[in-house]
Amino acid sequence: MEIISSRTNPVIKAAAALKEASERKKTGLFLIEGARLCFDAASNGVQVEKLFITERAAEKYSREFEAVKENALKSYFISEHIAEKLSDTKNSQQFFAVCRDTKGIPEIARDKMYVFCDNIQNPDNLGAIVRTAEALGAAGLIINSGCDIYSPKALRASMGALMRFPVIRTENGSGLLTALRRDGMEIYGSVVSPDAEKLTETEKKGSGVLVIGNEGNGISEEILSVCTRQITIPMKGKAESLNASAAATILIWEFMK
Amino acid sequence: MEIISSRTNPVIKAAAALKEASERKKTGLFLIEGARLCFDAASNGVQVEKLFITERAAEKYSREFEAVKENALKSYFISEHIAEKLSDTKNSQQFFAVCRDTKGIPEIARDKMYVFCDNIQNPDNLGAIVRTAEALGAAGLIINSGCDIYSPKALRASMGALMRFPVIRTENGSGLLTALRRDGMEIYGSVVSPDAEKLTETEKKGSGVLVIGNEGNGISEEILSVCTRQITIPMKGKAESLNASAAATILIWEFMK
Repeated sequence: MEIISSRTNPVIKAAAALKEASERKKTGLFLIEGARLCFDAASNGVQVEKLFITERAAEKYSREFEAVKENALKSYFISEHIAEKLSDTKNSQQFFAVCRDTKGIPEIARDKMYVFCDNIQNPDNLGAIVRTAEALGAAGLIINSGCDIYSPKALRASMGALMRFPVIRTENGSGLLTALRRDGMEIYGSVVSPDAEKLTETEKKGSGVLVIGNEGNGISEEILSVCTRQITIPMKGKAESLNASAAATILIWEFMK
Repeated sequence: MEIISSRTNPVIKAAAALKEASERKKTGLFLIEGARLCFDAASNGVQVEKLFITERAAEKYSREFEAVKENALKSYFISEHIAEKLSDTKNSQQFFAVCRDTKGIPEIARDKMYVFCDNIQNPDNLGAIVRTAEALGAAGLIINSGCDIYSPKALRASMGALMRFPVIRTENGSGLLTALRRDGMEIYGSVVSPDAEKLTETEKKGSGVLVIGNEGNGISEEILSVCTRQITIPMKGKAESLNASAAATILIWEFMK
């Protein structure tokens, strides 16, 4: 394994640049951090292009190290100060991978439940939603271009779920939802409105798509216009609304339980 | 109003020091940031000891500024670089208050529902839990000494709910719960265990205490031993568990809906 100890090494510079969303978009690559996350990626069909690890981490996480190394196209030992440059956390595990998502686009099963995120911007919310969707048994996540699922924060908040869970990316969310609707799937739009159907009174079929809107603006008009139902979570307190991931949690729970 | 433009001004140093949990504990004071949060504090009986604001912010948030100023013991104009020193965010609103929590300890109504946080450490989780508890109509939050509700992050994540919602702090959680139990309240401990009662099958009384455990370790043994019921959220996916605030959201929703 090659050893890198210079912070100006172009391989390191290219990897560190992936902390930026624009660079991830341009290259189709993303950077992940942590023994467990790298292990989950390697064991779930994510293509690991490069592995970066300090000697200390290789010793400490030897099981994960061996598994990731076996799947990586190229592996490097890095010095501690380079780990610092790549890291996005305070206590780095000094274990990184540059990945390319080559997973095929999963089929959408018309008799299952999916969660659609419409421009969810907070990476913590996005990570939390996918973690909850996986834990409660939804079939997959659909996201449009406003959702950056490969940001380091989203990956961390998902606790690896983003590496394991079926994720369908679409540039044309309303087109996709229209097709699913034509096939008989219900498209449930989550809104904050006294006029919408109450979640507690909605008939739940166990299949369909739950649409979660953007934190500030809710569901975009284009997407809302293709929803077959608009549902709302009844609230009692003084708060203006639930956090997007709390609302998603309640919706997924009600439909999946 | 006095004008402060030196970063080494002792009043500013004392305020900035409140970013640390140890300093908050020592002084009984806490620092809040943002027009809405300061307004919520001033209008909900929180004692505002000092208001710090830039001239620009005073103009932009004139309504909130007037309301907070009227309730503040002392108000200062600060320069922009001092706002930066006090701020905990990237885009500061340049509007700050040092507060003392003089709200009395609220009575616990035996016929209502409370949420007990047992050493919840992540401030985002703590803020999210109180926001959800308020939105779904719980009566109050009980926290023990492991929960730092006045950290800037928790305050932000709560969207002001921490300023409005009844919060009971206790150094002796198990003693308090034992007393409530003696008065006939159910104490529901949320656990991850196949042997516990399933949330979907639990009888819900509409009163009691929901105990949410620490992110890594769950509910402490001392607290668990005084719970009258142990309940678990049935899960289906590969994830090891739900995030603490997602679990709390589902529990509060099920008991309050």
